[in-house]
Parts: sequence; structure tokens; C-alpha cells
Amino acid sequence: MSKKQQGDKVVIFALGGVGEIGKNMYVVQYGNDIVVVDAGLKFPEEDMLGIDIVIPDITYLVENKDKVRGILLTHGHEDHIGGLPYVLKALNVPVYGTRLTMGLVEAKLKEAHLLGETKRIVITADSELQLGSIKATFFRTNHSIPDSVGVCLETPEGLIVHTGDFKFDHTPVNDQYADLAKMAEIGSRGVLALLSDSTNAERPGFTGSEKSVGAELEEVFRKAKQRVVVATFASNVHRIQQIIDAAYNTRRKVTVVGRSMVNVVSIASELGYLNIPDGMLIEPEEVNRLPADRVVILSTGSQGEPMSALTRMARSAHKKMDILPGDTVVISATPIPGNERYVGRTVDELMRLGAHVIYGPGSVSGVHVSGHGSQEELKLMLNLIRPKYFIPIHGEYRMLRMHGLLAESVGIEKDNIFLIDIGDTVEIQNGVARKGAKVPSGNVLIDGLGVGDVGNIVLRDRKLLSQDGILVVVVTLSKQDGKILSGPDIISRGFVYVRESEGLLDEANKLVMNTLTRLMGENVNEWASLKTHVKDALGRFLYEQTRRRPMILPIIMEV
Amino acid sequence: MSKKQQGDKVVIFALGGVGEIGKNMYVVQYGNDIVVVDAGLKFPEEDMLGIDIVIPDITYLVENKDKVRGILLTHGHEDHIGGLPYVLKALNVPVYGTRLTMGLVEAKLKEAHLLGETKRIVITADSELQLGSIKATFFRTNHSIPDSVGVCLETPEGLIVHTGDFKFDHTPVNDQYADLAKMAEIGSRGVLALLSDSTNAERPGFTGSEKSVGAELEEVFRKAKQRVVVATFASNVHRIQQIIDAAYNTRRKVTVVGRSMVNVVSIASELGYLNIPDGMLIEPEEVNRLPADRVVILSTGSQGEPMSALTRMARSAHKKMDILPGDTVVISATPIPGNERYVGRTVDELMRLGAHVIYGPGSVSGVHVSGHGSQEELKLMLNLIRPKYFIPIHGEYRMLRMHGLLAESVGIEKDNIFLIDIGDTVEIQNGVARKGAKVPSGNVLIDGLGVGDVGNIVLRDRKLLSQDGILVVVVTLSKQDGKILSGPDIISRGFVYVRESEGLLDEANKLVMNTLTRLMGENVNEWASLKTHVKDALGRFLYEQTRRRPMILPIIMEV
Repeated sequence: MSKKQQGDKVVIFALGGVGEIGKNMYVVQYGNDIVVVDAGLKFPEEDMLGIDIVIPDITYLVENKDKVRGILLTHGHEDHIGGLPYVLKALNVPVYGTRLTMGLVEAKLKEAHLLGETKRIVITADSELQLGSIKATFFRTNHSIPDSVGVCLETPEGLIVHTGDFKFDHTPVNDQYADLAKMAEIGSRGVLALLSDSTNAERPGFTGSEKSVGAELEEVFRKAKQRVVVATFASNVHRIQQIIDAAYNTRRKVTVVGRSMVNVVSIASELGYLNIPDGMLIEPEEVNRLPADRVVILSTGSQGEPMSALTRMARSAHKKMDILPGDTVVISATPIPGNERYVGRTVDELMRLGAHVIYGPGSVSGVHVSGHGSQEELKLMLNLIRPKYFIPIHGEYRMLRMHGLLAESVGIEKDNIFLIDIGDTVEIQNGVARKGAKVPSGNVLIDGLGVGDVGNIVLRDRKLLSQDGILVVVVTLSKQDGKILSGPDIISRGFVYVRESEGLLDEANKLVMNTLTRLMGENVNEWASLKTHVKDALGRFLYEQTRRRPMILPIIMEV
Repeated sequence: MSKKQQGDKVVIFALGGVGEIGKNMYVVQYGNDIVVVDAGLKFPEEDMLGIDIVIPDITYLVENKDKVRGILLTHGHEDHIGGLPYVLKALNVPVYGTRLTMGLVEAKLKEAHLLGETKRIVITADSELQLGSIKATFFRTNHSIPDSVGVCLETPEGLIVHTGDFKFDHTPVNDQYADLAKMAEIGSRGVLALLSDSTNAERPGFTGSEKSVGAELEEVFRKAKQRVVVATFASNVHRIQQIIDAAYNTRRKVTVVGRSMVNVVSIASELGYLNIPDGMLIEPEEVNRLPADRVVILSTGSQGEPMSALTRMARSAHKKMDILPGDTVVISATPIPGNERYVGRTVDELMRLGAHVIYGPGSVSGVHVSGHGSQEELKLMLNLIRPKYFIPIHGEYRMLRMHGLLAESVGIEKDNIFLIDIGDTVEIQNGVARKGAKVPSGNVLIDGLGVGDVGNIVLRDRKLLSQDGILVVVVTLSKQDGKILSGPDIISRGFVYVRESEGLLDEANKLVMNTLTRLMGENVNEWASLKTHVKDALGRFLYEQTRRRPMILPIIMEV
């Protein structure tokens, strides 16, 4: 452990992943050394219209660029690595991750033309890194993607442990057990603070083993008289391995559809994380040459995502693959809150096509388990690490709070539990923790190539436009005497069906004309005033007539 | 039973409520007599931007106006009565419903200024109506609102039974037992076809009794050291009664917040469906005069609806009521699919204010049970009624299908089960059923005062506008020589933050200018052609620069 410096302290905060699910990014700073854990993205909320993805505000890191020693990645999920291309553009620092994680990162950086200029260091669970005064070590965990690790940061002030996403799977698919011994050893050295995954803090008991899903899938494959379609998360390499194994054991061939599924299968098998017997994989075009009971179709779309392969198949709109009556479709996932209706609609469509569909929460269907530990596992982690201070992370507020109660129940002092929001800091000095000053934080919205250029005003306008559309009112005035030379013309979009509303629009036109004529008679001729009057009069009239409030955009041209 | 007419048949179809949840409306026709069961609304789906509510397309009923003998209402929920004001405007026919149902309908008709002109007939479960050749009788059911009934339509062709929404509650709150004897008696007379509620067809077992909720609520009230806020559906009069009883038993007073909750409490207590001891109800303003452990706040917002009382309290934005640290908030409802995130966010906000929140699926929280029967109850209904033909209703396709499988499991012949979409008809003649010709059907979208004037074009424009906003390009040309006299001006909304995008918009402006100049040089001067070229060039440029596709609206003025 590096020497402790007079007056220095350790500062811990999150730029994402607390009070929300996604865009995970956690920061530990000691003096002039900053270590970042993960750099994720999240998908937009309902009110973020037109936004593609959301990343953390990294103002603090950019302002302290010279202190950032590196970004440590716990695993290869989008909500932990998806923000990297944006972060690295502003902050060219080394990136550390295990082999599969780095494989997925590299595909991402290549697409963003950042591969050459990014220093990438592949680590294992046994690696030790000296990042300025902070030493980083790792421990193996179980999660719904292989090669996931927790991080132990040895600062001169003490040990800070970050679990990453984890569960305890006592019968893991790849025989990579969570390293209980190492966690216990870290715990026995005395841990100053633990940051632990709260995703399933509301769920009692233990999360089931991934292996239970494999057995269930094989049973489904065996019973199915025709083709089996399995939709799951592309990144769930364990699940994909079990699907391939179940197919092999039931003498079925596997074809892969969906861009992200094709990508992951290719990267994971290249790196040796997928074991696919020769001749098992076939092209989608070859499916029809095989008997129906010799085929498995591995697909994206387990969340009913509108553009995914499964959804397109369900709508008979997939280029290469149709659902046939008698097919069995397995949705090997639980809907993420907010996606239930999408999944439900996909199930309905599949059934209308005559498919037999296995769906529903994993606890009911048997064909899915979560990648996150439930309450008993969270307590196990707390008791292995036995931290002085506890900061629940990765979860919405109610999950963080429940995780805090779990920590209390295993003996962590209530005052030593910090429920933080993004930007809140916890400072620890001489073994004493307190809340410190906030750092800048928030959501940076990505829309196309624009990073952060869509803010509240643009979103408010999109919301308005989406509700009742827009009316543009154009008029050309004479520079000399202010007389109307052309117009007013009214053009509407998203307001009413124009062909059936000619009367309304004619009246609106007359109203604008009268308003302008009246104003001119009163010698009102500042444009701003003309526009405001037209907007008010027209808005009032339209609301009376339709109870709608379209955006009204008056434009004055002058010649 | 009326005499059977040569060549006549019974025709059954749904204008809403099959393949979807909501806007329930079912039709039974025999010869020249049409009986309608329910007239509901549903709330818009995600892609119906700006739409307020959705009602059934009743073209068929309007075209056969003279044959419609009346609308029978099974109970007073919005998805069964909410469409009435719109339907009655097009179709002035008598409305039949039980006392509470009619109380709720009358409030609705009053608001729509339809009370005077609508013939309203209050029925009981013992009423018998002769509607042309169809005789209607009723049977009492249990549901999450009192006074719910099933309908038995005696046609010359045979008996048609419609369950309405139902569960079997063997310990009902109001001692109004489902009339098992009458159902069995109907069944023993021989039923031609049964239409039965499929909402919970995917749920195994029995739905719990409403009374179990009352006991749990009383326990919560007793333990709570401070105020208790309970949010539930305003229409769940049984639940409200139990909340009042639990408050009474724990020496708490009740105040009511939320417009619909105030309405229902007033109507239901006026009609005697709520038994509220004198002095129990207090005004919101009086709450602060009482000790915190003497107060219950009964509120709307159990679905996290953005404008509801609970959501406003959670955001500290309610005019009359604040959440105080230590308050207990009970969400006495299960989130409807699609609302999970709203409810989650409300729970988070409440917890941030220091409230203790009881939430989650009813099966976990104990403070909610469904109003719809589960699989064992659906089978019980099938076995009581023992129909020849079975039409599952009230549910999305996968629920109808599961209900069909349940019917098969109790011995209904597979070929006698009809899974229908809205507009599909089932014709039964001489005891033989077949699918008949479709009738017009669909969603009629209500936006403000507009009924059905927002269609696909308007919705598509709203969708486009909501994603990337709009750019309006205006130019004034000379009538004489086609020269540009003013502009081009570009105004954008919802596209980019204009103050930070001046460069982009300047370039866009130049591009439009160059495009117009070039076209004029080539003697292109039809407006349509000019507009198309400007749109294409500008669209391409903006996509390259931003990867966004705003709507582009070119406007040419001429003087």
C-alpha cells in the first residue's frame, strides 16, 4: 500500500448507476489519482423523445484529466462499457478489462474509429495494477456474461471494494466459480468501504443457477416436434452455450439471427468463450433444407424490441426467417420493467402465427434466471467483505434503500451506510466518512451525432409537437408601408387531417387576417408584437374549436 | 323464449375487448334485434401520440341503428362504460345497468350534457328485460366494484351467456355472493354459447378474497406510528370500504384526495354502497390538526399516473398535502403492464421524502388482490355454465388462447372454441356455429373534441416531429421573374439547440440558397419541384451533419 499523504483523503462517487439502472460509472479518487470503474450507457426514458442513448456527464473527469489513471471494466455489458466511445473521445486514458470484456470493447472502439489511439490492457482476475497511489486487484464473480470481476482498490486510506454485477452461482456453466476465498481474504484484511450491486435487492432468497436453465431448455428442445426459436440477450454467452449444448444433445443444428447475436457469437467463439462443435452452426438460408425437428433458431428480441429479429419474425417481416405453425418459441428472459407490453405484443403475434410460446417471468417459465444476486447473496457478499462503510450501487433508489436495510440486518451501522445520488461524494479521511461537496453530474443525451446538444428546450418542443402537432403561419409584408403582400398562409402537420378540416383552417386563416389588419390599423407593427398577437388569437380559437394546443409558429417575411 | 323465425340466426361479435384489454363492447344480434353489452374505452397505446382516449368503431351499430334495442352494462368500470358519451351521441338507445353502475354513468352523462336525452333503466340481478326477440336476465358476480352482473340473453336460437368481469369471492366484503345457484340453473337449461372474462387466464390457481386485503390493511394501520396514505383505484368501492373500516378500527380519520376518488366516494356513499360512520371523513385542511397516528389519506395514483394526487404528493407538488418523513404509504394495487416504471419512480420519490412504502405485486405486498378470476375460477365458470360453444373475451390474444386451452381441459370441444378478433363474427344457426362475414371495427381515437379525425397520417407526422423536430424553410419569390425577394429563412423547433448550432443553420441556409439559385439557373420553377429539391438537399445535408431526420417543410410565398 502506498504511503499515506498528510491531509489526503479518499473520495468516492458515482456519475451513473445510483438512483437509476444503467450508465454505470463509479469514481474513486485519492489525492491526485483517479480510478474510474465502468463507463456505461442507458437507454432513454419515455420523456427523452428522439434520444438514442444516454451517457454520464463526465465534466469532473475532463476537468481532472491529468489525474485519471484509467478505466477499469468489471464486465462487457452495455450498461458498463457502452459509454466508452464517448468518454474516450474526451478523455484518452488506458482501459483495463478481462479478455471477453476487451473483445467486446474492441468491436465497439473499431466502429467509433478509436481502436488505434486507445491504450487497452487485458487483465485477469489475478492481475495487479499500480494506478498512481492506488493499487487495483480483482476477484472473479458470477454474472450473466463470462469473465466478470469485482475490483479491490487499495488506497493509502484503506481498501475500497466494488463488486461489479454479481450473483453466486454454485454450479456455473463455465466452471468459473466466484472466488469466495479471495473475497473472504480481502474481507479479513479490513475493508474501508464496499460498493455492491443492488439490482435484485428487492428479491428475497437466492437467484437460481444458470445451469437450471440449460436442463429446462434441453427438455423443451426434446419435446418440440418442430423448429425451436430461442430469443435471449446477445451478451448472455452462458445462455448461448447452453442453447448450443441442448441443440447438440437433441440433434438439432443452430442458426443465428439478429445483428448483435451474430456479433457476440462470433467474438465469443473466436476468443474461446463459446464451444461450438464443428458443423453445428448453419446459415439461415440452410434451415429449410433440414427437417423441422432438427433446427434451433437463436435470435435477439427477448425484450420485444420493435426492430429486433424476433419481433420482425413475429410480424412476418423478417427477410430470411418465417415463423411456421407448430414452431416452439422460447423467450429466455424476463421483461425489463417498461418492456412488458412489447413482449406481450410479440407473444400475441407469435401465437397468431400458430407458434407455441414459452414466456413469462423466469420463475414461472423455467427458461431464465437473473444474473444478479438476490437478498441472501447480497448478505453473503456483505459478510464476506465485512466493510466499515457501505454504499449500495447499481439500482433505483428503492433498491439502494432495501440494500441498505439488508446491510443493517447483517450488522453494518446505520450511520455507516451512504445512500447516494449521482454526483454526491463520500469522503473518507483518517477512517471517518462523511458526505462531501457534489461534483457535476447528470444525463448527457445522445441524438445521432449530437452529444449533449439536445437539452430541455428541444425536448420540450418535441413533446409539444408530439401531442398536437404544429401550425406554421407565414405572411409577407411590404417593407415600405407594412401592408400584407402575400398570405397569411397556414400549413399544419400532426394537428388535424387537413383534407377533412378545410373549414377549420379557412376560419383560422380569416382570424389571422383579421388580427393582422386590426393591428395594422392600430399601428402595431413591431414583428414581435404582431407574432404574439397572432399566436394568442389563433391558439385561443383552435383550443375552443378542438381542445388541442398545437405549437404555433408565426413567420413574417419582408420584401 | 320468442318463436324462432325461419332462416334467422344469432350473430355474436366484439367491437372491442378481444385481442386487447379495454374498450369492451360485445354485440349479440338475432334477426332485427341487436343487444349491446358494455360500451367502454381504453387508454392510448405508446404510438398513439397526443390521443386522449380510444373508443370502439361503432359503424355497424350506427348503420343498424333501428335494430339496437339497448346497451346492457355489466359494471361501472371505465373500460366498460367510458365510451358511452360518444356512443350515445351517435346512437340514442336505452341504457340498462345496476344502481351503482347507473350512478357512475349518470355523472358521466351529465358532464357530456346527455343526461336528459338518454333513457336510463336501473336493473337488479333479478330483472328480466324483453328486448325485441331477445330476453335478458342477469346473475350476480364478484368483481372489484360492487353491483357487477353477468348477462344471459335468451334468443330463439338458444341461450347466450356473457360473464362480464368476474371472480369468485367466497367471503365478499359486502356479503353479495356470486350467484352460483343461478349460474348452475342457467347451465342446466343448456347454454348455446358462453363469452367469459380472460384477463387472468394466464394465472394459475384462485384469486384471493378481497377480505384478505382488509385484514392486512388494518395491520398496517395499527403498526404505523404516523400518518398512512393509501392509494388505490377510485372505482374499487370494496377496497375503499375496507380502508374506512380499518381506519375506524384503528381510531384514524380519513381524508380523500384526487378528483376521481372524491367523485366515487361521493356517489357510492350517496347510493349507500359505502358505509362511512359520522365524523370519519375530514377535509384535507383538517389533517394537520390531528395527531399523525390518527390520520389516513385516501388517494388516487396507484398506477403512478403523472398527474394523480399521489404522484404530485411524491413530487412535493400537491397543493394541500405533503408527505412527511415517517409516513407510511400503501400502494394498494398491482401495476398494470406498462405502468411499472411510473409506479417505481413514485415509490423512489416517496422513499426519498422519508416515507415507508408498501408496494409491489399484491401477492407480495398482501395489500391488493385482483378483481378477475384465475384459472381455477375460469374453469368453475365453464363448468357451471357448460356451454356448447365458447368465446373467450376480455383479454389480449395470449390470454384468449390460454382461456381456450382451459376450456378444452374441462371438455369443451376444440372446434367449438372461437378465438375472435374485433369485427369477427360467430353465426349460430340450427345449433351450428361458424365464422361469418366481418363487420367494420377498429379504434376510434379521441383527441380533444375530435372523434376519429386523427388517423395514420397525423399520427405519423406526430411521431416524426417527436423524434427529430421540424425545420421550416420559407422563401418569397417574385411573381414576375421568379427571383428571390426575401429569405430563405430557416426556423427550427425540436431539432437542435439553436443558440449553439448557428454554424450548422447558417450552412443549411447557404445550401438552400445555392440549391434555389442553381434550379432557377436551370429554369426549374414549378413550386413542387423546387420544394422537393430543397427538401432532399437539406435532408441529406442535415443527416450527414447530425444523423437526424427532422421533418422539413419548405414554404414558398409569392408577391
